[in-house]
Amino acid sequence: MTVKLVYAFAEGSAQMSALLGGKGANLAEMARAGLPVPPGFTITTDACKAFFRAGNRLSDDLRKQIVEALKRLEQERGQRFGDPDAPLLVSVRSGSVTSMPGMMDTILNLGLNDETVRGLAASTNDERFAYDCYRRLIQMFGNVVIGIEAHRFERLLLAVKRSFGVAQDQDMPAEGWKRLAAEYKECIREAAGTEFPQQVYDQLSMAVEAVFRSWNNQRAKVYRQIHRIPDDQGTAVNVQCMVFGNKGEDSGTGVVFTRNPSTGDNVLYGEYLINAQGEDVVAGVRTPMKIDALRADLPAAYEELVQACRRLERHYKDMQDIEFTVENGKLYLLQTRNGKRNAQAALKIAVDLVNEGVLSREEALLRIEASHLDHLLHRGIDEDAVTEVIAVGLPASPGAAVGRAAFDADTAAAWKKAGKQVVLVRSETTPEDIHGVLAAEGVLTSRGGMTSHAAVVARGMGKPCVCGCEDVRIDMDARRMSAGGRIVEEGDWITLDGATGRVIAGAVPLKEATGTEELRVVLGWADDIRRLRVYANADNPADAAAARAFGAEGIGLCRTEHMFFDPSRLAVMQRMIMADSPEERQDALNRLLPAQQSDFEGMFRAMDGLPVTIRLLDPPLHEFLPQSEELQHKLNSAATPEERDNCRRLLRKAEELREANPMLGQRGCRLGIVYPEIYDMQIEAIFKAAAACMDQGIDVRPQIMIPLVGDASELKLLRELVDRVAEQVLGADKRRDCRYKVGTMIEVPRAALTADRIAAHADFFSFGTNDLTQMTFGYSRDDAEGKFLTHYLNRKLLPHNPFQVLDTEGVGQLIELAVARGRARKSSLKTGICGEHGGDKASIRFCHEIGLDSVSCSPYRIPMARIAAAQAAIELRESEEEAEAEVRSAEACAG
Amino acid sequence: MTVKLVYAFAEGSAQMSALLGGKGANLAEMARAGLPVPPGFTITTDACKAFFRAGNRLSDDLRKQIVEALKRLEQERGQRFGDPDAPLLVSVRSGSVTSMPGMMDTILNLGLNDETVRGLAASTNDERFAYDCYRRLIQMFGNVVIGIEAHRFERLLLAVKRSFGVAQDQDMPAEGWKRLAAEYKECIREAAGTEFPQQVYDQLSMAVEAVFRSWNNQRAKVYRQIHRIPDDQGTAVNVQCMVFGNKGEDSGTGVVFTRNPSTGDNVLYGEYLINAQGEDVVAGVRTPMKIDALRADLPAAYEELVQACRRLERHYKDMQDIEFTVENGKLYLLQTRNGKRNAQAALKIAVDLVNEGVLSREEALLRIEASHLDHLLHRGIDEDAVTEVIAVGLPASPGAAVGRAAFDADTAAAWKKAGKQVVLVRSETTPEDIHGVLAAEGVLTSRGGMTSHAAVVARGMGKPCVCGCEDVRIDMDARRMSAGGRIVEEGDWITLDGATGRVIAGAVPLKEATGTEELRVVLGWADDIRRLRVYANADNPADAAAARAFGAEGIGLCRTEHMFFDPSRLAVMQRMIMADSPEERQDALNRLLPAQQSDFEGMFRAMDGLPVTIRLLDPPLHEFLPQSEELQHKLNSAATPEERDNCRRLLRKAEELREANPMLGQRGCRLGIVYPEIYDMQIEAIFKAAAACMDQGIDVRPQIMIPLVGDASELKLLRELVDRVAEQVLGADKRRDCRYKVGTMIEVPRAALTADRIAAHADFFSFGTNDLTQMTFGYSRDDAEGKFLTHYLNRKLLPHNPFQVLDTEGVGQLIELAVARGRARKSSLKTGICGEHGGDKASIRFCHEIGLDSVSCSPYRIPMARIAAAQAAIELRESEEEAEAEVRSAEACAG
Repeated sequence: MTVKLVYAFAEGSAQMSALLGGKGANLAEMARAGLPVPPGFTITTDACKAFFRAGNRLSDDLRKQIVEALKRLEQERGQRFGDPDAPLLVSVRSGSVTSMPGMMDTILNLGLNDETVRGLAASTNDERFAYDCYRRLIQMFGNVVIGIEAHRFERLLLAVKRSFGVAQDQDMPAEGWKRLAAEYKECIREAAGTEFPQQVYDQLSMAVEAVFRSWNNQRAKVYRQIHRIPDDQGTAVNVQCMVFGNKGEDSGTGVVFTRNPSTGDNVLYGEYLINAQGEDVVAGVRTPMKIDALRADLPAAYEELVQACRRLERHYKDMQDIEFTVENGKLYLLQTRNGKRNAQAALKIAVDLVNEGVLSREEALLRIEASHLDHLLHRGIDEDAVTEVIAVGLPASPGAAVGRAAFDADTAAAWKKAGKQVVLVRSETTPEDIHGVLAAEGVLTSRGGMTSHAAVVARGMGKPCVCGCEDVRIDMDARRMSAGGRIVEEGDWITLDGATGRVIAGAVPLKEATGTEELRVVLGWADDIRRLRVYANADNPADAAAARAFGAEGIGLCRTEHMFFDPSRLAVMQRMIMADSPEERQDALNRLLPAQQSDFEGMFRAMDGLPVTIRLLDPPLHEFLPQSEELQHKLNSAATPEERDNCRRLLRKAEELREANPMLGQRGCRLGIVYPEIYDMQIEAIFKAAAACMDQGIDVRPQIMIPLVGDASELKLLRELVDRVAEQVLGADKRRDCRYKVGTMIEVPRAALTADRIAAHADFFSFGTNDLTQMTFGYSRDDAEGKFLTHYLNRKLLPHNPFQVLDTEGVGQLIELAVARGRARKSSLKTGICGEHGGDKASIRFCHEIGLDSVSCSPYRIPMARIAAAQAAIELRESEEEAEAEVRSAEACAG
Repeated sequence: MTVKLVYAFAEGSAQMSALLGGKGANLAEMARAGLPVPPGFTITTDACKAFFRAGNRLSDDLRKQIVEALKRLEQERGQRFGDPDAPLLVSVRSGSVTSMPGMMDTILNLGLNDETVRGLAASTNDERFAYDCYRRLIQMFGNVVIGIEAHRFERLLLAVKRSFGVAQDQDMPAEGWKRLAAEYKECIREAAGTEFPQQVYDQLSMAVEAVFRSWNNQRAKVYRQIHRIPDDQGTAVNVQCMVFGNKGEDSGTGVVFTRNPSTGDNVLYGEYLINAQGEDVVAGVRTPMKIDALRADLPAAYEELVQACRRLERHYKDMQDIEFTVENGKLYLLQTRNGKRNAQAALKIAVDLVNEGVLSREEALLRIEASHLDHLLHRGIDEDAVTEVIAVGLPASPGAAVGRAAFDADTAAAWKKAGKQVVLVRSETTPEDIHGVLAAEGVLTSRGGMTSHAAVVARGMGKPCVCGCEDVRIDMDARRMSAGGRIVEEGDWITLDGATGRVIAGAVPLKEATGTEELRVVLGWADDIRRLRVYANADNPADAAAARAFGAEGIGLCRTEHMFFDPSRLAVMQRMIMADSPEERQDALNRLLPAQQSDFEGMFRAMDGLPVTIRLLDPPLHEFLPQSEELQHKLNSAATPEERDNCRRLLRKAEELREANPMLGQRGCRLGIVYPEIYDMQIEAIFKAAAACMDQGIDVRPQIMIPLVGDASELKLLRELVDRVAEQVLGADKRRDCRYKVGTMIEVPRAALTADRIAAHADFFSFGTNDLTQMTFGYSRDDAEGKFLTHYLNRKLLPHNPFQVLDTEGVGQLIELAVARGRARKSSLKTGICGEHGGDKASIRFCHEIGLDSVSCSPYRIPMARIAAAQAAIELRESEEEAEAEVRSAEACAG
């Protein structure tokens, strides 16, 4: 038996998109629903894969099936392909499984040749129309199938228009199109040394081959890489009878959205052209009309369109983006798909559809995309304060950023450490600049596109980015940039608007994101449905307050080390590290204590009634000292013997603390165990802050988190320290009232493996998936990203960057195992994740599936996490229900 | 019910050593066997633990039980403790569970005071004996219980001897001992402000307390730390009726081994003193007599001793070390324990006991200790060639080493890289010197004892070490050392003998270890019993041949990177790394290929008929470049512009390749995937070598091992590369004959977790437990050892150094899981380990238990591994049999 590789529209359905592609499946669905779709058939993605396997050759079997399908089409239409009198014409369009708009190729009017064009002219009694169709075919065929550059045809079109003295295509006489068709054929002959094929079946098979091949053109490959579409999916091809919008004033073609994709308003939105064929609307040959005007131009067709829109929207339960053609007053639908929309519209449409009873809340929630929320939630510019836009680049990552321009990553990082806000300005960024991007409020590059390193990295970090801003000239020697006739010295304030690509001189006040009413509604639904709690990663009271406003139910991770980078504190921190005696060390710690205490008081106050999870000091101590190179430099330029001495001491200490692999060195609780006085101080500060807040009537819920535990003995020891200090600071009664918790990060593989023993000493586990990923893979993120990992991703050795999307197969296995063992030991154990994955949708879904209690992410990701948690709950419930139904039906069969 | 804390000897047995301590259990065992043991009782280790828990106080309950036991002793002996006429005297001795010879305290002659001493004199009619006993009691009590330094008593003894004009103790008249007793009491009064207690029950309880306390004296703690004895074990205390070897010429005391502990010959071996008490033999007060002389001195007692020795040896099935006393012609046994012996004797005794039918082969094998084999297997000095011993230090780690003296670790490492043999010479080593120790043939230090850093580390690595060699003076500025009136410049040859502590000028020829006939016999038994195969880690043909001689059944790990450190090859390697174009790189690789091929031919030839597992290049490329500091230095002193240019290029490359965490960076198969031409060359060299050897009739069994795999896709890709190159080099027929295998290291946690998928592409798994330990714990070995890990071990947060003893709880779990999943996927999968743990006994046992197929270790560890594998098999069988027996008996009961 041969495999069925070609499906008539009547044989398909919307469910068959894996085989028929999105467009083919939707055409079939519309045909089945009785909507006016020109008949046709779809060549399957399997046929495409076979084509590639055979070395880009169509099999004889496929050729046969295509001819058979075409015969059926001829019967249905009562026309014949290649008929010299009244030929059947068809279009050939790509239709991939996942929409890749504009990436692949289309050819219209196949079936015309020097002979049939005359038949078409005769049968339609419209020579102008026939030759217009013919020249379009030759142009598209020449470009797509034969590979001749489009501009060659454009140039010829322009010349003919000029010689006929016409400005607009529709004013061209039949003679003009005839001449142009001839010139196009000559152009093909000259440029490619080949003839435009006169055999109509050759035209068809060459077009199908070309569409298959276009799956692997450069822009399609890049698009798939960006959108993570598998390369082996292949594309389907749709062959469809032509209908003509260019048959005169009672014909036309257009695109319509069933609702306004910018506002979400429930009104038709779109454009059309009278007497034009498909690509004219997109190509901007003439200015199209607003869809409302169609009501007057072609009232019957308009009314039919309105009805079709309504039916399609209810059928697909979503706003549709529809291509239509009116041929001599009759409406045809050529394509429908879910329409793209902006963030605000997406939410409004979802909420409206629920209110209209079209969608359930669950269905509406599943439609929300993370990118929508990004746009609604990032800070924006206070437009009233914008005075001087000095350049505009590509809007590469949304949000607005204000900071001092820094021209290299080290400077950006150093300034950030010193407490300054910076914007990183580079001609382009490389992986070596990551620490600079991390340190910056936003990134501006003068080179590179939307998928350049800077753009990709900034989006990943949720930082505003303007890239490819070629108006900006950077002078690295003078350390300044010029743009729009203005000089910006390093250290001067600039503002970026990542949503529009604007670069603005000076510090423009920012407006916090406010969301929309619909967002609040949708988040409310999500909160009703989700099971995962959503916490925030926040290291200061301001971020904590922002997080609470975004709906955080507590702080899941407060990284105390960030509290020491303020310059005044850093100096004391360094004195602590450099201390020659325990007394000296204690003295420095005593000076840090009040600062820490006030940090914690601020956190508790902002989170009144909610848990605040405080991670004790984690990074290796050398991170608080200047870099060796910097010190060597300082030493060389030191003026006084004291300065020199100090530099030498710092250098010695930095050397002493230097580690071969700091990631796997003396950090986390190893630090707290070897230097207990540091943790002692932090714990004292936490409980003093708790006591002070309790006295003010604040409901404090401290959760002390011990980092990098690998053996239960570490946690046991440090938990005892916490309890001892709590008793000392609070006394027995207050300690009882305080109800603090002690838990640990699970970020070392061994901690996951021995989770049962660790759970004996823990009230909660928080999976530090960044480090857990590093150690489980044996990847140092610093050394992997932009290096071998990029190589691996490009070669598809790994499906995702495991630092962005949680590796469920390996890392996830450790998490599942740790949760199961931890809970078996202690049923009250709380579990959550606090790595960057806490803000990734797929990772959140995994967390829900394995039954974690919470995820923690950066404040701006919280609404997204709330939605994602609800989506996970809905999807899991659905798949469980499906599984149950299967079981029931299997039982029914068995019974 | 009160807990029984005191056991009469008659109530105990050898099995009760956890409760009664080794000595107490053996005394009980002897008493039950009817051997002449003075009666007594044992205070349990539980009592000791309770003593510590109560803050170093004896409980009333324990005091009561001691008094009751003493009452029973009085009844049995018909004497009374504190009786002024004929007092019962007792000894109080420590007796820990694990033997800690000399670490803890003993007090003899308790029960004497100013009154009872007169009774003893009267009842024995020997005033001299009575006061000798009394002064011994006061001296020991003063020292051990009251804490007065021993030399104070020594000084008084010397003065009294002088004033009585006697040289030897046995010549002292009664009056002298009387005077000394009085002066000792005065000494206690003066030094401690306290009286020697006249209440005999006070003496007893104070002595028991002192022995308990001695568990925590400094030397006992250090001993436990070295020998890994748990601190919470506690000691038992034995209270035993005194018998007196100092009662005249028909009395005496001695120590006897049932066989010669140096040769293993089956003859009594020991020493005794007539008319002396216990400690005199050890203290060397008089020169003791050889045990044979006792046959003439006290024939009956000698005969009885011979019989007792024979009985005890058969009873304990091992050579015994026995303390005895003869009191007025009657023999008493005071202690028996398994005797310490040297390596040669240990093996001879084991083999003899098997031949005598005393032991089974299995029992004999279980007796063999790794340390025994070390001594028999390390290389020794060719004594005929020793001309100039310039110093003698402590024999800290066995074996002999020859090399050029290097005075710091960097120099040692650099010279080693340059292909030189070096001996590291330091005043003392620190953890920063580890790479120097690793690079050196042996280590010499001028300071530090047998447990100094250098000694411990060298033993761990199986390297010869002489330490604490104070005759050696090192002049770091002049970079030379002087010893024995001779100057050794850095770079001069020296030879170390780690077995004797000798330092010898020049390069003395070494003799390979030969083992003994008994060793061959025992290894033969082991081979019959063990299930694990034993492979060798060897990187060159010479090591491979040595390994085969030691019984290696193949090469489990050949690290190809070691083949590139030869200076001539290193230059080409650097050229390869620095290549600007693929052509340049290929050119360098083409020059490396013949060298690699000849390496592999040598390996295949040495291992004719056995598998040779070759790991493709593993370390990051920057390891093949000079250090940045070194390059900077060279740059500063470069003479020509070309040199400067070259330095600059190298520096740039070194910077480019520098990684934040090289352990987790671009190494292993990541290297092979990003630069496929390197692996390509190595694989080609392997198959060319295989082809050449096959042509010579050699049975080659190449096993190509891919390092650092973390995802199945990596192995799949590289396996395809191997197969492709094999086909190219060998052609189809030869490829079939070659029957090579392809496998992977499992050293990344994720590889273990996804072992099922990886097994689909692997013929074998080799667990790289060094890296697996680093990543599972999140410990960089370089940064942990000597730093926080030492801190952890000292504080007992971890039971062992996981780099020495496999962490079965965490790392072991991953190994078990990987084996189970790998085999479930592919039942023919072979599994083994090749980390340093492959040479550790406990780790080998674990490998056996979880059913691995092989272990691989360094050539000199192979005999040890063969024995350890057999021991594991025997122990596992025994514990299974016990479990079965329990089940049977449970079933019998139930039935």
